[in-house]
Amino acid sequence: MTQFNPIQSVTPSTNINEPLVIRKNSGSVVTLTLNSSKQFNALSVKLLAAMQAELDNIAQDKTIQVLVIAANGKAFCAGHNLKEMRANPDVAFQRALFEQCSQIMLTINQMPQVVIAKVQGIATAAGCQLVAACDLAVASDNAKFATSGINVGLFCSTPAVAVSRNLSRKQAFEMLITGEFIDAHTALQQGLINRVASAEQLDQMLQSLIDAITNKSSVALKTGKTMFYKQLDMELAEAYEYASEVMSCNMMADDVSEGIDAFIEKRSAIWTGR
Amino acid sequence: MTQFNPIQSVTPSTNINEPLVIRKNSGSVVTLTLNSSKQFNALSVKLLAAMQAELDNIAQDKTIQVLVIAANGKAFCAGHNLKEMRANPDVAFQRALFEQCSQIMLTINQMPQVVIAKVQGIATAAGCQLVAACDLAVASDNAKFATSGINVGLFCSTPAVAVSRNLSRKQAFEMLITGEFIDAHTALQQGLINRVASAEQLDQMLQSLIDAITNKSSVALKTGKTMFYKQLDMELAEAYEYASEVMSCNMMADDVSEGIDAFIEKRSAIWTGR
Amino acid sequence: MTQFNPIQSVTPSTNINEPLVIRKNSGSVVTLTLNSSKQFNALSVKLLAAMQAELDNIAQDKTIQVLVIAANGKAFCAGHNLKEMRANPDVAFQRALFEQCSQIMLTINQMPQVVIAKVQGIATAAGCQLVAACDLAVASDNAKFATSGINVGLFCSTPAVAVSRNLSRKQAFEMLITGEFIDAHTALQQGLINRVASAEQLDQMLQSLIDAITNKSSVALKTGKTMFYKQLDMELAEAYEYASEVMSCNMMADDVSEGIDAFIEKRSAIWTGR
Repeated sequence: MTQFNPIQSVTPSTNINEPLVIRKNSGSVVTLTLNSSKQFNALSVKLLAAMQAELDNIAQDKTIQVLVIAANGKAFCAGHNLKEMRANPDVAFQRALFEQCSQIMLTINQMPQVVIAKVQGIATAAGCQLVAACDLAVASDNAKFATSGINVGLFCSTPAVAVSRNLSRKQAFEMLITGEFIDAHTALQQGLINRVASAEQLDQMLQSLIDAITNKSSVALKTGKTMFYKQLDMELAEAYEYASEVMSCNMMADDVSEGIDAFIEKRSAIWTGR
Repeated sequence: MTQFNPIQSVTPSTNINEPLVIRKNSGSVVTLTLNSSKQFNALSVKLLAAMQAELDNIAQDKTIQVLVIAANGKAFCAGHNLKEMRANPDVAFQRALFEQCSQIMLTINQMPQVVIAKVQGIATAAGCQLVAACDLAVASDNAKFATSGINVGLFCSTPAVAVSRNLSRKQAFEMLITGEFIDAHTALQQGLINRVASAEQLDQMLQSLIDAITNKSSVALKTGKTMFYKQLDMELAEAYEYASEVMSCNMMADDVSEGIDAFIEKRSAIWTGR
Repeated sequence: MTQFNPIQSVTPSTNINEPLVIRKNSGSVVTLTLNSSKQFNALSVKLLAAMQAELDNIAQDKTIQVLVIAANGKAFCAGHNLKEMRANPDVAFQRALFEQCSQIMLTINQMPQVVIAKVQGIATAAGCQLVAACDLAVASDNAKFATSGINVGLFCSTPAVAVSRNLSRKQAFEMLITGEFIDAHTALQQGLINRVASAEQLDQMLQSLIDAITNKSSVALKTGKTMFYKQLDMELAEAYEYASEVMSCNMMADDVSEGIDAFIEKRSAIWTGR
């Protein structure tokens, strides 16, 4: 455990009125910013509850196409709050905590919006899981990733679910069993994230990715995200049958008629989201 | 939708007697060439029907070991024919179309021959799916790949089935949700294709891959392709049990006795395909 | 079959008293070294039996955290013993052989210790499978990997189970259907192995990986390995439910209390393995 570990200098928040998660709306894009930088945005029970409330609200809002999960401070997210966990040494508390955290990850997976992690610093344990659980992820080139629970005797079991569905088997196992950091370029090559930029160009790169999504029909985005994950668990013939059904329904949307007409007429489509 | 999109200049074929798919036999290798270059080899109902007929015929022919799917013109395949789809705005037509196309992909997966895509230009939407659905793929370095349906409001649901079984999760999702192109080298690195060469050396590279397959026993090729895909959907212990059974049956083939004898005697094996 | 193939010069072992597998203990690390170098460490019935006995013994020993599988001689492992297979041309022998070999691979997967392949030379057929079946693998940069059974008419069906769970689909299929070698750097990039070093630095690199594991709590290692593979076969929501249960049980271990306390107090943890 000689590696840099950000929780070492955790101190209590000095401003209890500061919200743990900041929401910012901008057109069809919402950004949720983890705002507990002195705790390295550790996923405390309160922060998770604040995040779940925002996610549930966003999931119901048909005007939102993209959700960005960002963070204030030097760390993206250092995982669970170890002090809080240690202060509640009963199995019922722990089970509730992990179920609460898993529910966040499942909500991200099941909500209709495209969810992008914007990783500006280190992402460890459940913080690394959060990156893996998003649909897409961008990172600055000084970001680092680790599933470091094993360093304190606690294998990152819930993070393993998300990480092992992003990286290849041996690479995921190495991260989980050694707890060692990988840098942003390695994370890109191994499939944990989609794009890397310098810290100065992170916002611009994220914006180009957002622009490539928000210019699409909401019907197509929602249809696509839902079917993408659902068909992954099916055998091939079953997946094709399901996909054919989804695609023929998608074809009946007004947006597709408009999209094809606009395409043939060489003009921009005007989406109605129907 | 500012990106280059080849369907923009689709014009009707001028020669209705020209076959939509050209078949060429060469020993144990068959090449099917998509021959609707003015439509960027769009997968119209007629082209799909012509292709299915050829695939069904080839699947029954025990003398054929390798099927190459190639294309004439600048594009490999631009996916479905959007004009045809728009001209038939009923859900029954669409469902039949996607089922017809999915059947092509399933046939490629289930036929005993090794199927190689030879990609000389852009492959978009169901054209990209066709590349993903083949067992192997080679491409020239000016080939490009996109699942671009989302640009017209139609998420590439059936292509998602094939693409998500080639690329890692976040990379596949990015292609499908943004509709953006990836180049041949990115496609190689992400697992969509096996080999890249310059346009001038594409034929030579393909031939070396074909040679590495046609010098094998047909029993081994057929056994291998079938078991490879079947065991992918099994749990580990079940997969090993199935594979042990397949392998001990394979051992009983005359070709294996000959293969091992030839190997020990340091000579080339003479395969009988039994 | 023009490629280098090490079995060509197989000769009988001259020393029948030499053990087929050498076991060396060093603290919580055991190394099993394949010691049939004149047969290129081919997995004969006797060698498999010797290996299974050692694995079963190690699996029961709670003081062992890491198992290294290494090899003497120029080859890591050339797969099955083709002469032995050819000398026993009945399907019952073959089925028993493949089941015996599959049991080795399943034992490696199911035993609580972290198993690392140390690949110093070529690994072919079931030898390549052995690398794929280990949790982690390191290799020298002159190591080479192939699933070469197809060269003698025998598709590597049981190796396909392990290899296709490491590499992406098209890359795995190419290895299996062509029988061609990939070098160590390609194996690293494709996910078959975790790290590459020069032959001179292989031991040092392996040691750094071992050190990153043996400084962990045995409770966490055992919990982690078991849950990692089990959750891979589950759907997402089921996997999270299982992982939450595992992680809350893991939290109750004495080692976690100690680990978190040590972390907060900025000292090294003293693991008891409970």
